[in-house]
Amino acid sequence: MNRENETDIGKAAESPGLPPFRFSELLEKKVILQDWGEYEDFFRFSSNVGKIDEGSVLVKVGNGFELIQGFPKIKRAIMLAPALKNHFKDIYSVAVEEKMNGYNVRVIEHKGELVAFTRSGHVCPYSSERSEHLLEHDFFKDYPEYVVYGEMVGPDNPYVPKDIYGVESLDFFVFDIRSREGIPLPLHERRELASDYGFTQVELLGEFELGEAADRIREIITELGKKEHEGVIIKDPSMILQPVKYTTSQTNCADLRHGFRFYNESGKDYLFARVVREGFQSVEWNESEEEIKDRCLRLGESILRPMRESILRVQEGERIRDDVRIRVKDESTIDRFRMYLERLGLDVIFSPPERIGDEYVVNIRKMNRSTTDKTLGIIEGQLWS
Amino acid sequence: MNRENETDIGKAAESPGLPPFRFSELLEKKVILQDWGEYEDFFRFSSNVGKIDEGSVLVKVGNGFELIQGFPKIKRAIMLAPALKNHFKDIYSVAVEEKMNGYNVRVIEHKGELVAFTRSGHVCPYSSERSEHLLEHDFFKDYPEYVVYGEMVGPDNPYVPKDIYGVESLDFFVFDIRSREGIPLPLHERRELASDYGFTQVELLGEFELGEAADRIREIITELGKKEHEGVIIKDPSMILQPVKYTTSQTNCADLRHGFRFYNESGKDYLFARVVREGFQSVEWNESEEEIKDRCLRLGESILRPMRESILRVQEGERIRDDVRIRVKDESTIDRFRMYLERLGLDVIFSPPERIGDEYVVNIRKMNRSTTDKTLGIIEGQLWS
Repeated sequence: MNRENETDIGKAAESPGLPPFRFSELLEKKVILQDWGEYEDFFRFSSNVGKIDEGSVLVKVGNGFELIQGFPKIKRAIMLAPALKNHFKDIYSVAVEEKMNGYNVRVIEHKGELVAFTRSGHVCPYSSERSEHLLEHDFFKDYPEYVVYGEMVGPDNPYVPKDIYGVESLDFFVFDIRSREGIPLPLHERRELASDYGFTQVELLGEFELGEAADRIREIITELGKKEHEGVIIKDPSMILQPVKYTTSQTNCADLRHGFRFYNESGKDYLFARVVREGFQSVEWNESEEEIKDRCLRLGESILRPMRESILRVQEGERIRDDVRIRVKDESTIDRFRMYLERLGLDVIFSPPERIGDEYVVNIRKMNRSTTDKTLGIIEGQLWS
Repeated sequence: MNRENETDIGKAAESPGLPPFRFSELLEKKVILQDWGEYEDFFRFSSNVGKIDEGSVLVKVGNGFELIQGFPKIKRAIMLAPALKNHFKDIYSVAVEEKMNGYNVRVIEHKGELVAFTRSGHVCPYSSERSEHLLEHDFFKDYPEYVVYGEMVGPDNPYVPKDIYGVESLDFFVFDIRSREGIPLPLHERRELASDYGFTQVELLGEFELGEAADRIREIITELGKKEHEGVIIKDPSMILQPVKYTTSQTNCADLRHGFRFYNESGKDYLFARVVREGFQSVEWNESEEEIKDRCLRLGESILRPMRESILRVQEGERIRDDVRIRVKDESTIDRFRMYLERLGLDVIFSPPERIGDEYVVNIRKMNRSTTDKTLGIIEGQLWS
């Protein structure tokens, strides 16, 4: 970090909620981390500091800094009806929006360009370029104080590629607009504003009185499950109470089917959380003996079949990996994205870019070294201590 | 600790492998912990110290101390054939003994009475009393330097009650005899010696050349699985190489069926380890599509059905618990065992003792507060963060 930056950092002290005397201390303790290369203007919080959430970002603006709050963790209903009754007890109705299966980013405009932050507060070069083409810039000119929150969804997705949404490449589905301090717009106001600027939005699936909400959401979840969609976010329309998420058993099992190909990377927390959700949903939905058996089989198969396939692959001399794809307009994004992934510690192999129309498609092989090594060890007779 | 003990502790320094100057330091750091009440003569190691394993015990003998090595952790074959080939490559044949499902203890004679240590090095008052009646004392008079290792098995078992072995109350199945330093007798010598003193022993299921061992053990495992028995320990007959364990899918699933009634206590490691075993066994055994499906269903049911039952119980106002039973000759063992469990942090309710013949039977309810509280919270609408 150069001398000029040191001066600037002193000014970050003026950001809301951050006592001045602590900034350099937090930087030294690596609680605040500076981004790199073209993104040196950004400093992310690697843990919670007072009211500032992990993943929040300090942005150098002129001679000072501005804080962009992190994405608040949305809590999960395990048993839907009591969770709604308990969490939303002081309001009359709830709005239900689809929770899509992709990865969420926050977008701002900075020095004339759109910048997309991941949940952890990194600037993702790929998501930034995609946002540049997917979001209407006028919005950011007209509302420079707002941050646009959305889910990046589709097959050209280097984190969670999905074909189930009818998205051809990658789209940005807005689900929140908040001030930089994290204060959300009320739901209908936000939907209207997003619509005015032509943003693609997550679907509003209904607004229900609290008394009927659990039953209606269950109907919605059943339909979403049939399409292997992920689930719903249940919101206080005024956005004063925190939203709550609830997901389908099918997405749960689809996650396991994908995740257990890399069983040693996905690990214990991943498995346990999903098992608990299945248990409670089965009880809440009063399942018949046949439905219970179906769910047990679905769970068992979601765990064991992908593990089996990975073991068989390693036996055949393959290495376990996850193949994903990106599509960019600016060829330089490819290298910047590779450096970004490598900096995060991923072991990736990029294919040569293929020109398709005015874009470049690159296949990325994410190597799961931990699962490969563990499996290989066991196949070669390693014991488990 | 009184002044007299402090003097004695100095002498523990003379125990093999323990540098004198470290004893008081380890005691202060609680690496060595003194047992209590009538067992103040014993100090257990709460972690590994050099070549001394966690669970090892220092025993006050006369004016000095003697070390009793902990029970060595037996490593597990996940894929049987390569594990055998790799681990036992330098020997001609392996012996296979049944691995029984109970809890293992080490027994010595101290001041004329038998004392049973658990794996962690605690003296268990119940196991000590039972050993007193189950093991021939002459052995310990004739071989005071030996430690008898065995599995406590049967329904009157406060840790792992099992009806599957045809044991009426509780029996002690010897599987090892070692010197206090942990050096084992060769397998056949040990079996003969145990037989000479009328000890009950784990079954010797065969001795196989290395080349055929995996196939033969698979046949054995298939038969044991049908009876829901646990599995086998595969040993170098000379006991120079470390033994290896291998278990049946049925015991794996039976563990899950039991453990997932207390899903929040059993937890993530418990689940993950068992899932991994199932995956590799399925591949190694070259299962047909139908066998794979059966295994998936068995796994799913072993996880979800007990969870469902616990949730339903809590919904009906019950608290989740594990009911076990002990049977003692000396009524005072009951109180000493209760104090022991409470000291370990368990929440237990003892029934009034019922006299049966010359013994007392006590039902013990072990309360699973963590699972009860977690389940109750979710039923009442708590969110999962």
